Amino acid sequence: MTGSHVGDLPVGRKFTVRRTVTEADVLRFAELTGDFDRLHVDAEYCRTTRYGKQIAHGALIIGYMSAASSKATEGFGRPVASLGFDRIRHLKPVFVGDTVTVTYEIAETDPPRERATARVAAVNQHGETIAVADHVLKLV
Amino acid sequence: MTGSHVGDLPVGRKFTVRRTVTEADVLRFAELTGDFDRLHVDAEYCRTTRYGKQIAHGALIIGYMSAASSKATEGFGRPVASLGFDRIRHLKPVFVGDTVTVTYEIAETDPPRERATARVAAVNQHGETIAVADHVLKLV
Repeated sequence: MTGSHVGDLPVGRKFTVRRTVTEADVLRFAELTGDFDRLHVDAEYCRTTRYGKQIAHGALIIGYMSAASSKATEGFGRPVASLGFDRIRHLKPVFVGDTVTVTYEIAETDPPRERATARVAAVNQHGETIAVADHVLKLV
Repeated sequence: MTGSHVGDLPVGRKFTVRRTVTEADVLRFAELTGDFDRLHVDAEYCRTTRYGKQIAHGALIIGYMSAASSKATEGFGRPVASLGFDRIRHLKPVFVGDTVTVTYEIAETDPPRERATARVAAVNQHGETIAVADHVLKLV
């Protein structure tokens, strides 16, 4: 994909990234961020919760969303940065061994401000939606 | 901190986490999420952008926000999970070597739904706000 105006972004095209969450991923994410919450790293404690086992960090899933965004803008003629998210909801837990597929679709562009908004959804291997978000991009 | 009702959360108290972003952190985050966007991993390309050098992933900063959330709820009598964010804005780039301080404050609680909302702000070593967010917690 090439282009240099926000209107050249691939509006309406769906990009996906897919990843199996490993135990190493969760532990490395805890190290990288300092988020060692018991829900992520304490297997015995998690047996006492409604989840029954350790869950992945929500921010790891947000990282997958960003990866999908990078895929959607790869090769574009100008740098595209993440301005942020308008709303993120973690709807279901993600466990070690789950395979997450993120679908990313640029829905709207705002040429005067050189911004675009994308709808993002993440599903697990059972087809359950585990997270949704609205992502905001900006040409920089 | 102890407690079992959402009203027992430490409303109004500020929790901080502080972290220097290393080059290794950015590269490990790229590996972990699959987000190898040029803005994060291509030093030569970045010299041609307005940033002049590689920037950290926004989702890494969101990970620090989650770490601050875990600190704010550590020791609580019931599991507290992240329901998501209502709005995240990355206001300034974060570079390798920058030291990020995240301040996390639970602002409101919603006892009927067992939810709480927190205001989150991240500043760099120059005191510049690099990101803000509203985080939503839920007892699970």
